[in-house]
Amino acid sequence: MWIIKTLVIVSHPEIDNSQTQQFLKKGAEDAQVIWHHVESLDEIDVGKEQKLLRQADRIVFQFPLYWYAAPYGLKKWEDEVLTRNFIYGDKTYPLEDKEFGIVVTTGMPLKDFQKGATENITLDEAMAPYRAIANLGKMKIMPLFSVPQFWYMSEDEQMQLLIDYQRYLSQKFPDSLANREEWFEDRLQQFVKELSDEDQFSGNLILDTFIQNKENLEQVNDTLKMIKEGEDE
Amino acid sequence: MWIIKTLVIVSHPEIDNSQTQQFLKKGAEDAQVIWHHVESLDEIDVGKEQKLLRQADRIVFQFPLYWYAAPYGLKKWEDEVLTRNFIYGDKTYPLEDKEFGIVVTTGMPLKDFQKGATENITLDEAMAPYRAIANLGKMKIMPLFSVPQFWYMSEDEQMQLLIDYQRYLSQKFPDSLANREEWFEDRLQQFVKELSDEDQFSGNLILDTFIQNKENLEQVNDTLKMIKEGEDE
Repeated sequence: MWIIKTLVIVSHPEIDNSQTQQFLKKGAEDAQVIWHHVESLDEIDVGKEQKLLRQADRIVFQFPLYWYAAPYGLKKWEDEVLTRNFIYGDKTYPLEDKEFGIVVTTGMPLKDFQKGATENITLDEAMAPYRAIANLGKMKIMPLFSVPQFWYMSEDEQMQLLIDYQRYLSQKFPDSLANREEWFEDRLQQFVKELSDEDQFSGNLILDTFIQNKENLEQVNDTLKMIKEGEDE
Repeated sequence: MWIIKTLVIVSHPEIDNSQTQQFLKKGAEDAQVIWHHVESLDEIDVGKEQKLLRQADRIVFQFPLYWYAAPYGLKKWEDEVLTRNFIYGDKTYPLEDKEFGIVVTTGMPLKDFQKGATENITLDEAMAPYRAIANLGKMKIMPLFSVPQFWYMSEDEQMQLLIDYQRYLSQKFPDSLANREEWFEDRLQQFVKELSDEDQFSGNLILDTFIQNKENLEQVNDTLKMIKEGEDE
């Protein structure tokens, strides 16, 4: 089993009062990532922060959208921690090839973030400055993960969000079918291992069924590919 | 003579050490605008700041580009001063129809701010979050004023910058020939007024010549327009 070392840099000025952040925090615990809340730091120790960044495979900025950007706490962290040499100076690139993601929560629905709609800017456009840093540091840029209007979500939608969020933190990217399957199989194996002895039997049955289904699906995919190639000739 | 009340919200963590900001500050004094440095505020008094904003005709954000955005001091100011209701809540728009500008200084040349170049983002793209606020508040958005690599500028270039900056702060927009002329004429009149008695005569000669030239130019423009209209028929 592969493990991606993910560092989540979270910015929220009142994180204890944020239902959304508390919900995501639980998901992050299950995914075994480092959850690093910048406003909780007494003082920003540049060396310590840079070391954390160096040790990570995937770095995720997570925050609520305040005036089309992160709260100022994250900008303060950026201004102090991200020294020129740490991103691109001296032709060394300490963050090169690490993955960079953004988890942004919004109070407005996604449909408002378009040209011509209320916000008149897409979330992708608003996040461009963060991606420009990652680009300068030669990082691999992941698609944005947005969480619009968490408090309107049904319980089912919240569960779906939790899984998607955990995949965003710990699944291999790109988000292909094969990578999803691998991720689910790993999680299932982990889950079965933690069952009591008497439940092990049924747990293993479920796991076997999942693996069998996965293999069947791969065969179907291969067959489809062959048919497609036949048609192309 | 019209006067535009311009409020310059300046953000720079070490403004006394910034040659560029000190240079621009002098220009702002001549243009008689309110120069408001956010990092110098002991504490942000929301009511006081909002009152300043309400009294202005033109609001300009001015800062050096740190990681494709303003220093965190401006974001802190935004997060605290720009309450929802002050921008767009309750269907009132306190900043409606005021002009919004951005003066951004950069350490890199403008040619680096393009897709495919080092920075891989345009300055316009990086500034999109600020304009989105102005857009939400129904403000009129002015084109960006960028000051790349001030310290490489020759004395002539600095003088040109100073005039352009003063025009950005106090000239009517759009930046048309007529508005430029009006601005220069006002400045010249002001200048002549302040001359000693013995210099008044030559000062007024210069002013008369300027006005005469302006009128001649307007006549030429009218003639050109007539010729153009004749061609269109």
